[in-house]
Amino acid sequence: MDGLKDRAAIVGIGATEFSKNSGRSELQLALESTTAALADAGLAPEDVDGIATYTMDNNPEVEVIRNLGGKGLKFFSRAPYGGGGACAPILHAAMAVATGVANVVVCYRALNERSEYRFGRPQAYQSRTTDGVLHYYQTALHGFMTPAAWVGMGMRRYMHQTGTTADDFANVAISARKHASTNPKAIFYGRPLSRDEYMASRMVVDPFRLFDCCQESDGSVALVITSAERAKHLKQKPALIRAAALSSPEGLVSLADYYTDDIALHDETHFLATQMYAMGRLTPKDIQAAIIYDHFGPIVMPTLEALGFCKRGEAKDFIKNGNIEVGGAMPVNTNGGLVGEGYIHGMNGIAEAVRQVRGTAANQVANVRNVVVTAASGFPTSGLILAAA
Amino acid sequence: MDGLKDRAAIVGIGATEFSKNSGRSELQLALESTTAALADAGLAPEDVDGIATYTMDNNPEVEVIRNLGGKGLKFFSRAPYGGGGACAPILHAAMAVATGVANVVVCYRALNERSEYRFGRPQAYQSRTTDGVLHYYQTALHGFMTPAAWVGMGMRRYMHQTGTTADDFANVAISARKHASTNPKAIFYGRPLSRDEYMASRMVVDPFRLFDCCQESDGSVALVITSAERAKHLKQKPALIRAAALSSPEGLVSLADYYTDDIALHDETHFLATQMYAMGRLTPKDIQAAIIYDHFGPIVMPTLEALGFCKRGEAKDFIKNGNIEVGGAMPVNTNGGLVGEGYIHGMNGIAEAVRQVRGTAANQVANVRNVVVTAASGFPTSGLILAAA
Repeated sequence: MDGLKDRAAIVGIGATEFSKNSGRSELQLALESTTAALADAGLAPEDVDGIATYTMDNNPEVEVIRNLGGKGLKFFSRAPYGGGGACAPILHAAMAVATGVANVVVCYRALNERSEYRFGRPQAYQSRTTDGVLHYYQTALHGFMTPAAWVGMGMRRYMHQTGTTADDFANVAISARKHASTNPKAIFYGRPLSRDEYMASRMVVDPFRLFDCCQESDGSVALVITSAERAKHLKQKPALIRAAALSSPEGLVSLADYYTDDIALHDETHFLATQMYAMGRLTPKDIQAAIIYDHFGPIVMPTLEALGFCKRGEAKDFIKNGNIEVGGAMPVNTNGGLVGEGYIHGMNGIAEAVRQVRGTAANQVANVRNVVVTAASGFPTSGLILAAA
Repeated sequence: MDGLKDRAAIVGIGATEFSKNSGRSELQLALESTTAALADAGLAPEDVDGIATYTMDNNPEVEVIRNLGGKGLKFFSRAPYGGGGACAPILHAAMAVATGVANVVVCYRALNERSEYRFGRPQAYQSRTTDGVLHYYQTALHGFMTPAAWVGMGMRRYMHQTGTTADDFANVAISARKHASTNPKAIFYGRPLSRDEYMASRMVVDPFRLFDCCQESDGSVALVITSAERAKHLKQKPALIRAAALSSPEGLVSLADYYTDDIALHDETHFLATQMYAMGRLTPKDIQAAIIYDHFGPIVMPTLEALGFCKRGEAKDFIKNGNIEVGGAMPVNTNGGLVGEGYIHGMNGIAEAVRQVRGTAANQVANVRNVVVTAASGFPTSGLILAAA
């Protein structure tokens, strides 16, 4: 189980600006972020011999490496399941490095998700894709045609079971926007959210209001992974990959998962957390910050429970009084999250975890040793625990 | 470099029939082949905790595992580049097993490539896919809209450089069909090819005649990978993964690769072979059989050269007099190849390599210790050396 623990590290991070209209191609964005990530690591394009990205990314490995000015690739892989697989390329890269298949692996996600296409639009057409959600047609007939609709029903059930209210949702949104407002890279930089603004915002799909929903963004983030040994001699303080896991629990159906005994549960995140803590030989008490995939902000609550930071149904109380802000017991999404910083399909959250480990985040948590990162739930999912050496 | 050598093994193989019209869904095909592969290995669906497949496969991991009756998945990955990545999921699976991320990984490819869609049809539309061949539009204008056209131009250049002729092409086709004719699973079972038939067959895209082109097939093949240690205690003689590699040499462009100094060269297979021999600590002399990705049969010749079985330009002589048939110096595609057995995107060739290692092939080579397997060239490519324990 501990074959990957501390074997590899994230040694470089890079990003474009996050916007609503990048004005340039996704390939250009990917090249800008990968170039920046390599410079950050103090590595050259010629050092790269592996690329790990996503089935949903439109930028071919060969185009990226050739246009970077790199040499040959000895490793490539793609992670399926969109945001569910957000942390998966880092696991793939760590495996490649740990087995000697590659020495330096670059991971990237580049998308013009706002200016070219929008994930928030009805997606009933997706009956047959490689991320293949075969059941879309069955639920689309009933109006379940957007991520907000798919995720919303489970969240409404969670509210019923736990007594969580819109006021609790507001607490999550306000905390995220507080972090975003002091992060110069965030789309919502300088724009904190008041409770009145939250409550007045329009309902997108009950129970989600506008400010519960993540951004639709253009931009790119890239990461550089190499061995823990080599990381010691590079430019930045390494973010060790203490644990990395993928999780698709028994019986899971992608997104339109209304066949389980309890549609409010996050079995995939429970199963993920079990694997990560075992691999990292850690407990929730060892974690100083959490980067939670907030495609919909209120998801932070059941995720905190699935990660073991509080008991089932207690997250609504746990998050109160700034407890998930910097200075609280468990700072969450210190970059502002996908709702506040921007939506680069989860990869911007991983970069924030690296900054927390380095001690260079805009909203820095004190004495960070381990940061947990999650990916989209409602899918097969993925996660990381990054650690200071 | 040898972190993966002999760490994992292929312990189960399974397949549907290969046909022109399966009459059932690709998911059904995937389930039949994976069920058969697990039975072959003596493992149960509950033992599976990882799935590795292709970006081009339409069957989601979660649908396969749930319908198989399996439990949770801890690993998933997709290999890009179609037939170029044919051996890549096995590398991914071996890495997962070697690092303890998963214990039993199933790989599958299921496609109704003849009855539902045909790779041989013009594919100029593919300007933006995850296997993203950005240059298609530039060459499509000149009629380069099918694999036969893309690969044919490089092959015509090879003929010019080496003096290889249509008569040499015929030798490859006749050898493959000889093997297919005695393989009961092959589409061309019982149907050897004569030189006259070959020469009389219509030109598809110069220099490729009909019988140079691989099948368009429906069907599925699945493989089961676990650790070399666990493999010792399973039902079948294990096929150790002695070497596994991916290869995208400097400057590669996918398929429409007319920008290199020499369009006839197979740099990607050279780079692949170098990696595999280094990892396996082997030379070409250690190999007893070769399974070469013959999307177009004549590709066998430059591939034999790239693998080091003969020198550049000498393959046309090397293959004469039954030298690539069972009993010859280097038996090639003993199942009949993609041209003779069927086209399951290269995965049926990997299954044949397993049978050769086990000693159970329809056309069995004597005293097999190591079998090399290649994937499609003209792309980032992949390969394996499978070995007897």
